[in-house]
Amino acid sequence: MPGDPHPKHPIEALIECADRAIEAEDFDTLIELYTEDAVLVVRPGLTAVGHDQLRRAFEAIAAHLDHSVSVRQAGMHILEAGDTALVLARTVVRADNAEQDERAATYVFRRAPDGRWLCAIDNSYGHDVIE
Amino acid sequence: MPGDPHPKHPIEALIECADRAIEAEDFDTLIELYTEDAVLVVRPGLTAVGHDQLRRAFEAIAAHLDHSVSVRQAGMHILEAGDTALVLARTVVRADNAEQDERAATYVFRRAPDGRWLCAIDNSYGHDVIE
Repeated sequence: MPGDPHPKHPIEALIECADRAIEAEDFDTLIELYTEDAVLVVRPGLTAVGHDQLRRAFEAIAAHLDHSVSVRQAGMHILEAGDTALVLARTVVRADNAEQDERAATYVFRRAPDGRWLCAIDNSYGHDVIE
Repeated sequence: MPGDPHPKHPIEALIECADRAIEAEDFDTLIELYTEDAVLVVRPGLTAVGHDQLRRAFEAIAAHLDHSVSVRQAGMHILEAGDTALVLARTVVRADNAEQDERAATYVFRRAPDGRWLCAIDNSYGHDVIE
């Protein structure tokens, strides 16, 4: 709103959009929020690369979580350096068939020449990826 | 070496170079490992942006830690998406006048057109930056 003292960062709005798309299983919308060469950590030790693999991974995750997943961010900080941004987030994942999972997530965004931010690296598992 | 089954990632070598430069207070070498618009989290709530601010921040940190700082990485994982990379690291900072500090650090690197990787976002405090 005009005069809002805490306007939302465009990346925060994108992450909200992604969370709603995951819940709605709207993978067409979801995939368009990622760069063509984006990397998704499906789980520690397994990554998906590029739009086709990301779509299949999101479909598999939705099925694995019994089509009942909900995602919200319980805290977030964004660090920007030119056209690159790092997001530190506390991401809460819920599903009917799993314990609630709070993750120290890390997301890297890139700003395209047209000004749009896109997610290039989606690692909701944070430091759990270290062997 | 030829035939090495686990060749070191160039970014891992850069981080080692940065850690040695911090210990030697060789800030000329250190600064050249960062992009011109790089962001450094000096501590949660305080960032330095660009080469001049980074140099002054590193000088202040060295003085604050009584010119006795040592840094090593106790574990690391690198996720690459095209010319962007995210490093998750367990960074151990020691100094004569402080408790040993193990941080869940996050670093973002960008690959320049000449092929060199440079650090764009240096956040050794990981999720501690979230308010």
